[in-house]
Amino acid sequence: MTDRKKDHIDLAFRSQIEQTLLDDRFYYEPFIDSHPQDELKPFTFLGKELRTPIWVSSMTGGTQLAGKINKNLAKACAEFGMGMGLGSCRSLLDSDEHLKDFDVRHIIGADLPLYANLGICQLEELIASKELQKLIDMVGKLEADGLIIHVNPMQEWLQPEGDRILRSPIESIKELLRSVDFPIIVKEVGQGFGPESLKQLLRLPLQAIEFAAFGGTNFAKIEMLRNPDAQVQLFEPLAKIGHSAEQMLNWTNEIVESNKHIKCKEIIISGGIHSFIDGYYLTEKSKLPAIYGQASQLLKYARESYEDLQKYLHTQVEGLKISKTYLKVK
Amino acid sequence: MTDRKKDHIDLAFRSQIEQTLLDDRFYYEPFIDSHPQDELKPFTFLGKELRTPIWVSSMTGGTQLAGKINKNLAKACAEFGMGMGLGSCRSLLDSDEHLKDFDVRHIIGADLPLYANLGICQLEELIASKELQKLIDMVGKLEADGLIIHVNPMQEWLQPEGDRILRSPIESIKELLRSVDFPIIVKEVGQGFGPESLKQLLRLPLQAIEFAAFGGTNFAKIEMLRNPDAQVQLFEPLAKIGHSAEQMLNWTNEIVESNKHIKCKEIIISGGIHSFIDGYYLTEKSKLPAIYGQASQLLKYARESYEDLQKYLHTQVEGLKISKTYLKVK
Amino acid sequence: MTDRKKDHIDLAFRSQIEQTLLDDRFYYEPFIDSHPQDELKPFTFLGKELRTPIWVSSMTGGTQLAGKINKNLAKACAEFGMGMGLGSCRSLLDSDEHLKDFDVRHIIGADLPLYANLGICQLEELIASKELQKLIDMVGKLEADGLIIHVNPMQEWLQPEGDRILRSPIESIKELLRSVDFPIIVKEVGQGFGPESLKQLLRLPLQAIEFAAFGGTNFAKIEMLRNPDAQVQLFEPLAKIGHSAEQMLNWTNEIVESNKHIKCKEIIISGGIHSFIDGYYLTEKSKLPAIYGQASQLLKYARESYEDLQKYLHTQVEGLKISKTYLKVK
Amino acid sequence: MTDRKKDHIDLAFRSQIEQTLLDDRFYYEPFIDSHPQDELKPFTFLGKELRTPIWVSSMTGGTQLAGKINKNLAKACAEFGMGMGLGSCRSLLDSDEHLKDFDVRHIIGADLPLYANLGICQLEELIASKELQKLIDMVGKLEADGLIIHVNPMQEWLQPEGDRILRSPIESIKELLRSVDFPIIVKEVGQGFGPESLKQLLRLPLQAIEFAAFGGTNFAKIEMLRNPDAQVQLFEPLAKIGHSAEQMLNWTNEIVESNKHIKCKEIIISGGIHSFIDGYYLTEKSKLPAIYGQASQLLKYARESYEDLQKYLHTQVEGLKISKTYLKVK
Repeated sequence: MTDRKKDHIDLAFRSQIEQTLLDDRFYYEPFIDSHPQDELKPFTFLGKELRTPIWVSSMTGGTQLAGKINKNLAKACAEFGMGMGLGSCRSLLDSDEHLKDFDVRHIIGADLPLYANLGICQLEELIASKELQKLIDMVGKLEADGLIIHVNPMQEWLQPEGDRILRSPIESIKELLRSVDFPIIVKEVGQGFGPESLKQLLRLPLQAIEFAAFGGTNFAKIEMLRNPDAQVQLFEPLAKIGHSAEQMLNWTNEIVESNKHIKCKEIIISGGIHSFIDGYYLTEKSKLPAIYGQASQLLKYARESYEDLQKYLHTQVEGLKISKTYLKVK
Repeated sequence: MTDRKKDHIDLAFRSQIEQTLLDDRFYYEPFIDSHPQDELKPFTFLGKELRTPIWVSSMTGGTQLAGKINKNLAKACAEFGMGMGLGSCRSLLDSDEHLKDFDVRHIIGADLPLYANLGICQLEELIASKELQKLIDMVGKLEADGLIIHVNPMQEWLQPEGDRILRSPIESIKELLRSVDFPIIVKEVGQGFGPESLKQLLRLPLQAIEFAAFGGTNFAKIEMLRNPDAQVQLFEPLAKIGHSAEQMLNWTNEIVESNKHIKCKEIIISGGIHSFIDGYYLTEKSKLPAIYGQASQLLKYARESYEDLQKYLHTQVEGLKISKTYLKVK
Repeated sequence: MTDRKKDHIDLAFRSQIEQTLLDDRFYYEPFIDSHPQDELKPFTFLGKELRTPIWVSSMTGGTQLAGKINKNLAKACAEFGMGMGLGSCRSLLDSDEHLKDFDVRHIIGADLPLYANLGICQLEELIASKELQKLIDMVGKLEADGLIIHVNPMQEWLQPEGDRILRSPIESIKELLRSVDFPIIVKEVGQGFGPESLKQLLRLPLQAIEFAAFGGTNFAKIEMLRNPDAQVQLFEPLAKIGHSAEQMLNWTNEIVESNKHIKCKEIIISGGIHSFIDGYYLTEKSKLPAIYGQASQLLKYARESYEDLQKYLHTQVEGLKISKTYLKVK
Repeated sequence: MTDRKKDHIDLAFRSQIEQTLLDDRFYYEPFIDSHPQDELKPFTFLGKELRTPIWVSSMTGGTQLAGKINKNLAKACAEFGMGMGLGSCRSLLDSDEHLKDFDVRHIIGADLPLYANLGICQLEELIASKELQKLIDMVGKLEADGLIIHVNPMQEWLQPEGDRILRSPIESIKELLRSVDFPIIVKEVGQGFGPESLKQLLRLPLQAIEFAAFGGTNFAKIEMLRNPDAQVQLFEPLAKIGHSAEQMLNWTNEIVESNKHIKCKEIIISGGIHSFIDGYYLTEKSKLPAIYGQASQLLKYARESYEDLQKYLHTQVEGLKISKTYLKVK
């Protein structure tokens, strides 16, 4: 103890903290409760029982590295009781060549949610060519619980090889909902979306909406980094368009409170969630049942090793426990 | 696709975007519409049919480089269906020496708007000397559709060789309107102007007002850069005076909505329009028919080559199309 | 005087001050009063007479350096008429080995307040093991006037060797209040606390609450600096949680004004008090009798020499006198 | 003209101006009026006729350099039709040794205001010792129109050799007003003063109040620069206390409008007036007749040569003329 105290004298001078850094989203109440003594309470989400309110928003697909990453992520889901959305499964529609990279049901186990993922352009094409059975087969061979449809008009537009969306995405999604009997989740890819899109989506019988809000991985920005060509750079203003997770949550709460015809059941809040404290804040504020999703944060550790990912997730769970005990959302 | 996906894993870490960069002037609605499949819709402006809502605010005159720039700009107008305002045509009043640099009607063609341009001091002198016919002749030999009068008291004041404005500009403009039968556009030169000037101009039977607002090329600043002399630097506060395009637009909308005697037909929003997204935002907000103007942005490319200018304008048109489809002004 | 004036001409150019630096918490009224001609007026606080409204918030304990620091601080209390809270006295519960480092009653003298200090975990353990007499004995052998209980859930949580708080701190404090007859002060350790904690504490028959608000020494940050380990860094968001002294003071004033059942008598405003001017501002605004506390500021000088500490405190007293004369809190 | 135009093309790229630099205190109205064609209109202030609304707030005294500076400043007053306040004339109370440095009546001429200057401590001492005749004699030998009393409690407090103010300054000033029959101006020395001081001063039969507001030369800061000693640095918070000229002007306007017993006739707005545009803005907003004062700006040029000072003042007059013509205070 003597040494620790001596440390403190020196460290005290280096630990003066600027008031401007204060995170003022919470009341800190250290006098009311004891330290958390139990694990996080299990809860039902996406129809299964989760133990940790984090959603794995995978972004990978079709490479050997993707296989390693997906396996690490699925293993973490099993250990921590989380659900997982795969990256784009487009390559699996017509071939099983990359199936092994996505095939993680045996790792995550039967009791946790696993969702396949497809872009709106592919969905549109399958509808147009009356080949939705391909999509159903893909979900089947992945033993997925359902399917995520990602909508990415800016990203496709900015890709030299990008596809074109020829119908209203909401109409394609409606048609999908009429054609399949597994649950559907809808997301954008990093810019979020506005109140009109939110309202129309919330009225559909979706399992969940994922925000993928502005502030996290920005796919329009990715296209700009991939294309140093001057013309693509001129589209940079498009990469600054979007809505933050908090803004989207406020709209969602308003829509849910003022509208009787909400059929969407749950939301996954993602996009710029840097740590447990952001996730805790946003899920606490949600009027619909909510968990929070992370993509690049998890990818970063999953790419290194399972142990790194495991340690990261352990801190997040501990952080959530202490947040729930001492922090009250303002 | 494998490579593209691998790229994505690395790029994802570099494309995390700061929430503070968010451009919050729009709602982004990616779920409602398909990708734009048609060209921009033609519309009537300045009495002719345009295909692109961009106004070429030329600033050059009287040099060989000016000839090349003007020709490139006129060629782009023809290709993209835009209108063009020439730089100051003062030198053409008394001599045809520089006429070839401004003579672009044969390039732009008969169906697009082309405007000559003269400063308020020259207009004043021609009125005083009862030589307005010179001005009419100049418009005639340029085969211009009309004339822009630019008003630049700060710039003239700061020039060692500057002219002096001896009458109220609004009075000179009124006299011009009584004396000629071609359309007149009025603009400042980079600082914009306040609500009283706007109100008085909007009541005149002008074809259009161009804002030339604070935020773009600042002619008072130009004079300071040209005169390193310490005394001129002391006038720097004058270069910070002015009004932004958005502020001017708000005033214009208020005046138009509360006033029955508005005779000015259209507005050209310019000054600090960095890209299609600013232009889209401001023209969408305007209560009067509006296009947006750019000067140095276009000059930069026109000076290099026609191909550079063409590529730039192509991106702007594409940007406008995607903006119209997915962005709703708040 | 000639030289001084010459100095002024040069210094005038270096002393132009930015308006953005203006401290706008006060009205400066130089015309109403004369320079302060008397010493600060003595007043009763913690049941004894103080001459200076500064509380020495010691943070040290258990090292030879701690002995020197505590002695310097106690000597300063005697000279300037201030009260002192010792650092954690945990080591004295079971052994007198370090008693000499804390034993400062003979230095501070009988007429000024001296408080022992213990963490909530130790209090909880003593209650659980029915050994509160140890705590009473510790206060006795220090000849302290009372005891400070510090509550530090974040700090303990972040320490690898940290203790766990198993009961509501407020319940342990209530039990302590029922069990001892000396006065009790309660504080956090650098992040402050929210309105619910404040309200519950203000209803207890405490001698005082010390804020230890966000902005000063941050013990969660200390733990992060002590543990370069990546996992601990992931808890950084917790170090940004808290409340400033001004925010806590506003809540306290509101609670005191709207509540009849306030039994806590006084407050010690600490955490981010950089100088006399902050202390003057906050104590002037308080509805409860208040002094202000400093920790690392005093430690910095006390560690060097008594003369350094003495000079520092002299300036603070002079600053308080001139503040009282010329500054009116807005 | 060809060359000038060519210049413009290059300069246009360097003169793009950031919208954040916009000075939004004015409406810029370039269409209503012609360029200014007359000189500034003479007006009565301090009982004499001025041609330029700038007050020379001298700060020098008692050195050979001071003599040169004062002579240059007085010469400029004569040329531009301005008034001048001398720096502290304390040294002249008991000796004529430095009189030649202050003796500028023959330079400024009989028709422009010239004011002597004395600190509140000296006034207090003269009152206490019943030697006010010394002060009257000093004003007489300088052939000054009146006397400025400067009040500087912070500055004196921070000087090792500083005097102590033993009475309320307002009482000493009242006594002075009863004892002399020349006009009195009162000022602080660089921090300005609050509404209570303003209100009490405005009720006195003063010729004028000079603001000497926060934002210009800060005498508390000067003392800190002169005393590198650590203790003096600890008083730095006092150098950040004060009020801006705009804030003081707003209070003055409010007091003048709501109070029938205002006897002070005029105000001199000084402290942080960087150029004609600030001076124009503030004097335009004043409800009492007002001119604006500058100290270090003028000193800087006066120290170099009369030509530098002359050129500077010429730009300020031109700037005022163009401001009056084109800028309307919001």
